[in-house]
Amino acid sequence: MYPGKAIYRIPYADTDQMGVVYYGNYLRYFEMGRSEWLVQTGYPYSRMEEKGIGLPIIEAHIDYKAPAKYEDLIRVDTKFEQLSKVRVKVSCQVYNQNDELLVEGYTIHSCFHLEKKRPIKLPICFIEHMQKNLD
Amino acid sequence: MYPGKAIYRIPYADTDQMGVVYYGNYLRYFEMGRSEWLVQTGYPYSRMEEKGIGLPIIEAHIDYKAPAKYEDLIRVDTKFEQLSKVRVKVSCQVYNQNDELLVEGYTIHSCFHLEKKRPIKLPICFIEHMQKNLD
Amino acid sequence: MYPGKAIYRIPYADTDQMGVVYYGNYLRYFEMGRSEWLVQTGYPYSRMEEKGIGLPIIEAHIDYKAPAKYEDLIRVDTKFEQLSKVRVKVSCQVYNQNDELLVEGYTIHSCFHLEKKRPIKLPICFIEHMQKNLD
Amino acid sequence: MYPGKAIYRIPYADTDQMGVVYYGNYLRYFEMGRSEWLVQTGYPYSRMEEKGIGLPIIEAHIDYKAPAKYEDLIRVDTKFEQLSKVRVKVSCQVYNQNDELLVEGYTIHSCFHLEKKRPIKLPICFIEHMQKNLD
Repeated sequence: MYPGKAIYRIPYADTDQMGVVYYGNYLRYFEMGRSEWLVQTGYPYSRMEEKGIGLPIIEAHIDYKAPAKYEDLIRVDTKFEQLSKVRVKVSCQVYNQNDELLVEGYTIHSCFHLEKKRPIKLPICFIEHMQKNLD
Repeated sequence: MYPGKAIYRIPYADTDQMGVVYYGNYLRYFEMGRSEWLVQTGYPYSRMEEKGIGLPIIEAHIDYKAPAKYEDLIRVDTKFEQLSKVRVKVSCQVYNQNDELLVEGYTIHSCFHLEKKRPIKLPICFIEHMQKNLD
Repeated sequence: MYPGKAIYRIPYADTDQMGVVYYGNYLRYFEMGRSEWLVQTGYPYSRMEEKGIGLPIIEAHIDYKAPAKYEDLIRVDTKFEQLSKVRVKVSCQVYNQNDELLVEGYTIHSCFHLEKKRPIKLPICFIEHMQKNLD
Repeated sequence: MYPGKAIYRIPYADTDQMGVVYYGNYLRYFEMGRSEWLVQTGYPYSRMEEKGIGLPIIEAHIDYKAPAKYEDLIRVDTKFEQLSKVRVKVSCQVYNQNDELLVEGYTIHSCFHLEKKRPIKLPICFIEHMQKNLD
């Protein structure tokens, strides 16, 4: 129904004593959006790790519009774009079951060789994968 | 496909440096199982809270059989049973996408009046709901 | 030794399978910094809530310099400043035991009446408290 | 002041909309107790991992007596004991700043070779370390 998008029911765990989702959890939702997009478009992040490559986050930004609540069924929309030979930007929007925009933001990732522990160029096949799967 | 069961893709967030899901996260998965069962059988926990009643946990037990891993698609099977006039036991099993049992355990809940902050009897309608929805 | 600063030993829970702290946890560390600063300077956040006032987050930004690791003893430096009659900005830096800057960022908070569920002006006594406790 | 014990200020992050600490967080507090005990008695868990050995959890049990609350300063008391040549039991109690027992429980760990991915005997030096540091 929502190809490439993460769908998630908010558990009690994610709320805080203000009665809404704790602000720190949205970075987890952003990651669920990225992971699900990669799995569903056919380039799971685990495959990248098997090649010895990671995409650690170097910057994150979040704008909070309205709070998600317990039992809400949220949806994370995700968009990957290449910033440079070694950088990727991922934009995320979190919506509730009424299609209300709750939170939006982005993460910036560097491409990293996990064993050598230093930056490397993004794999060509991943750049092509991002271009092919633009909405 | 799995009515009354929570389905969840393991995010990177839930792993630890041993490369598998951190042991503390399964209590969250148990709760996702309970919440989803209650929503899908038509007695959402939020409705109970609106009546001023909560089901705080007084005991939890977990047996770990095999670890869940990043990108696994887990399923939580959940069974509610009445223990006494004021106690409920919820049993949970967590399976991966290969139907392998990873973790099982239970939580015991007391019925609690949220405003008066003291135990009360389980609502008759909730007892009937549990009985009606036994597998 | 570090008045007004949160000190925290990184548990296994906070790591992920890349072997470092998961990026989403730093917003929790920022909050630990804010909470500890408020407690230690004598204006605990719980007291604000007792007055019916909250400081929900409307924006967050994080720059990741170097990863925190398991067993690291981190320190969070925190600085409150008034942005407007209804806005507060809190800047945070996270250091490890070698005084290496790992992460820095900020959160922006609006002042909110918890019961009426609408913005209100920052309490004068809180504005004075922030001014009095500038480093 | 409390040698070998973890001290921790409850952040907002750990509360849920019932206004107390979410039940799943106590397994993290148990781990903070274990990690801190090991660091302070001079046998950090990271050193064990460097030897290629892990102590994954195979069972956990928690009894909840009273809830921890936001801004509480909790203390985790931890006791290691050998169950067999390949098993360790760790008992934990969580107290608040008024020395009130909030939660108690235990975890059972198997000794595991991280690379060969199979159980091995507990290292003699670790058995001796546990015996030497009994309260």
